[in-house]
Amino acid sequence: MHFSDRIQALKISPIRRLIPYADAAKAQGKKVYHLNIGQPDIKTPQGYFDAIHKFTTDTIAYQPSQGILPLREAIANYYQGFGVPFEPDDIYVTCGGSEALSFAVNILCDPGDELLVPEPFYANYNTFTRLSLAKIVPIPTKAETGFHLPPEEVVESLITPRTRAFWVSHPCNPTGVFYTPDEVHMLCRLAKKHDLFVIADEAYREFVYEAGEYMSFGQVEDAHDRVIMIDSVSKRYSVCGARIGWIAIKNKEFNAQVMKLCQGRLSVSEIEQIGVTELYRTTPKSYLQEVNKEYKMRRDVLYKGLKAIDGAVCHEPKGAFYTMVKFPIDSSEKFIIWMLQNFDINGETTMAAPGNGFYADPNKGLDEMRIAYVLKKEDLEKALNILKHAIEAYPGRLAIKA
Amino acid sequence: MHFSDRIQALKISPIRRLIPYADAAKAQGKKVYHLNIGQPDIKTPQGYFDAIHKFTTDTIAYQPSQGILPLREAIANYYQGFGVPFEPDDIYVTCGGSEALSFAVNILCDPGDELLVPEPFYANYNTFTRLSLAKIVPIPTKAETGFHLPPEEVVESLITPRTRAFWVSHPCNPTGVFYTPDEVHMLCRLAKKHDLFVIADEAYREFVYEAGEYMSFGQVEDAHDRVIMIDSVSKRYSVCGARIGWIAIKNKEFNAQVMKLCQGRLSVSEIEQIGVTELYRTTPKSYLQEVNKEYKMRRDVLYKGLKAIDGAVCHEPKGAFYTMVKFPIDSSEKFIIWMLQNFDINGETTMAAPGNGFYADPNKGLDEMRIAYVLKKEDLEKALNILKHAIEAYPGRLAIKA
Repeated sequence: MHFSDRIQALKISPIRRLIPYADAAKAQGKKVYHLNIGQPDIKTPQGYFDAIHKFTTDTIAYQPSQGILPLREAIANYYQGFGVPFEPDDIYVTCGGSEALSFAVNILCDPGDELLVPEPFYANYNTFTRLSLAKIVPIPTKAETGFHLPPEEVVESLITPRTRAFWVSHPCNPTGVFYTPDEVHMLCRLAKKHDLFVIADEAYREFVYEAGEYMSFGQVEDAHDRVIMIDSVSKRYSVCGARIGWIAIKNKEFNAQVMKLCQGRLSVSEIEQIGVTELYRTTPKSYLQEVNKEYKMRRDVLYKGLKAIDGAVCHEPKGAFYTMVKFPIDSSEKFIIWMLQNFDINGETTMAAPGNGFYADPNKGLDEMRIAYVLKKEDLEKALNILKHAIEAYPGRLAIKA
Repeated sequence: MHFSDRIQALKISPIRRLIPYADAAKAQGKKVYHLNIGQPDIKTPQGYFDAIHKFTTDTIAYQPSQGILPLREAIANYYQGFGVPFEPDDIYVTCGGSEALSFAVNILCDPGDELLVPEPFYANYNTFTRLSLAKIVPIPTKAETGFHLPPEEVVESLITPRTRAFWVSHPCNPTGVFYTPDEVHMLCRLAKKHDLFVIADEAYREFVYEAGEYMSFGQVEDAHDRVIMIDSVSKRYSVCGARIGWIAIKNKEFNAQVMKLCQGRLSVSEIEQIGVTELYRTTPKSYLQEVNKEYKMRRDVLYKGLKAIDGAVCHEPKGAFYTMVKFPIDSSEKFIIWMLQNFDINGETTMAAPGNGFYADPNKGLDEMRIAYVLKKEDLEKALNILKHAIEAYPGRLAIKA
């Protein structure tokens, strides 16, 4: 039986592929703290439930392929609140940010075309790129410099005639960095100079723990026709299972291409669009502020816990709720499996995501892990304490360089 | 600005691209009967609303990428009811049948690979194929022979080393045919002989108007590992806007590939899966029987109305709720625009979908239209009467061959 080369090139998600080992640990009666997945434990605001509980109609029909107008109006209003001039017509509702990302790749790339992505990056960027037979060209970043971008001339040197766009997660899953206004302007400037787009995945926009510094790519006025905004309510309102995201740009020619893809899959869920519209209309500002405060506290707990691990190389994450950490071990995949099979403290153990899935080349990041901090304080502290002792006990531990 | 070749090769949906003309007619105060879209007017069963109205949880979280188990159990139970042995593990829930189709194409095809599709076919088969840079090789069918397949040797002669699958809509959108058990077995036999798959899009399975003849591709026992079942509740339970479909096959190697794509887009909507589970659990059998009876009556109205149009070439549709009709006109696209702009009876006019979008080559089917019969009897009769008189009055009408 024949399967396509493109599907065979896809790997099982690094965030999920070790789950059978976690299941086996649980089957033995162990408790497993999940630092591998970015599923927040925050409550979904009541507005979502109120909207769906009162919703009724005769026939659950196809909705406009672009998304329902009340939702697009609510989203436009949200952007205008921080100076991004999107109109409802600029916004195309998608089935999660995931669909928006795959739209962007398909609109820009033919096989062999290149996308410049700061590395490490969200593992599914590999999925969408490989399916389209495009190519991620990494912009190298590292914990030692807080995962910030290299100098402009280094970034520019990576541009080739096949380059189609910069592609950033901002704030960044998995590194926790967000870019300075200078970095944001630098990428937009290079995009303009070399006739490229910027795919700005800002799903974690509200998860920023340093006030007054974050700049959206949508705020760069002279790049409005080049910034492809990817967004999602999954994390913002803790509705990951609603699958509502969007792609937006002030560029009519681009939008005509998006419309073709929207029509190809006909429509997005009616009731989810209605629920999310109500989230935008009724959720008090205090909700996001409180969530932000909670995550900032968790970030502090995480960073303290990681610094207590001898030989861990990390930075203080500034946004999102992940970070990439390098440990003095032979292989993070082997380590995680070993930890799930052989290590526990009072019947409790920890799971994280192996780092190499967040690189274009699976031979990179072998001694790194992505850590998500979506657990409450006490659980996070326990999980990090287990991690610390597991690394100390791990047979594949390496000597720490001075 | 650069857009990919693949996106530029996509056309705006033939079902929707003339909508601006319909909107203009409505703005002039005309009523427009829509024979262009397959949006049923049938009521969604109450179970869907009951389930979502009582649903509550703390956090709308990511669901298992494969789909929630209760839904997969309900679907497996449905198949077992007519002798198709799917287990919950064989079923992968998708965002509508559309996502299931794009999964199948990506799993089977690299650029240049070929899919054998009876033509005319559902327009979005072009969308998914062009995005993947694969190629539809048409199996020609026509109204004069009821859109049935050509003889086995003709079908076999179309197979090349690049052929990956047969791909059928069964019952067929847009032609209204469903294949005889002999035709079903013929495609499965050729698939086995040439190591191909069969993509069986059976979204219209319950819309069959000749009792006892319809055979699902899932019922061919020795082809279980080759039949990729594509299915959807959109039409079955009149929940087009719920976006719940699935892909299913008894083939573990294939399913491992599906899982990679499911993980790439993370999850399907939680509440839609819950609503649809309840549809399967609580909708009485009489619902589908009554819907079927209603559509059979509409089919009769349609066929009678079409036969009354001088020079129309059509067949009696046996399933789904569409048919393709050839008219004695220079161009169906020009005709539809003309009808919307210039023709009405008592302020009412009609819209249909131009036929060439349902062909691989847009220069084919120029004198054809796809007609959907999703209107109630009186409206359908009026719409067909308008169509008849419009064709008689149309300046681009051709002489009818004897």
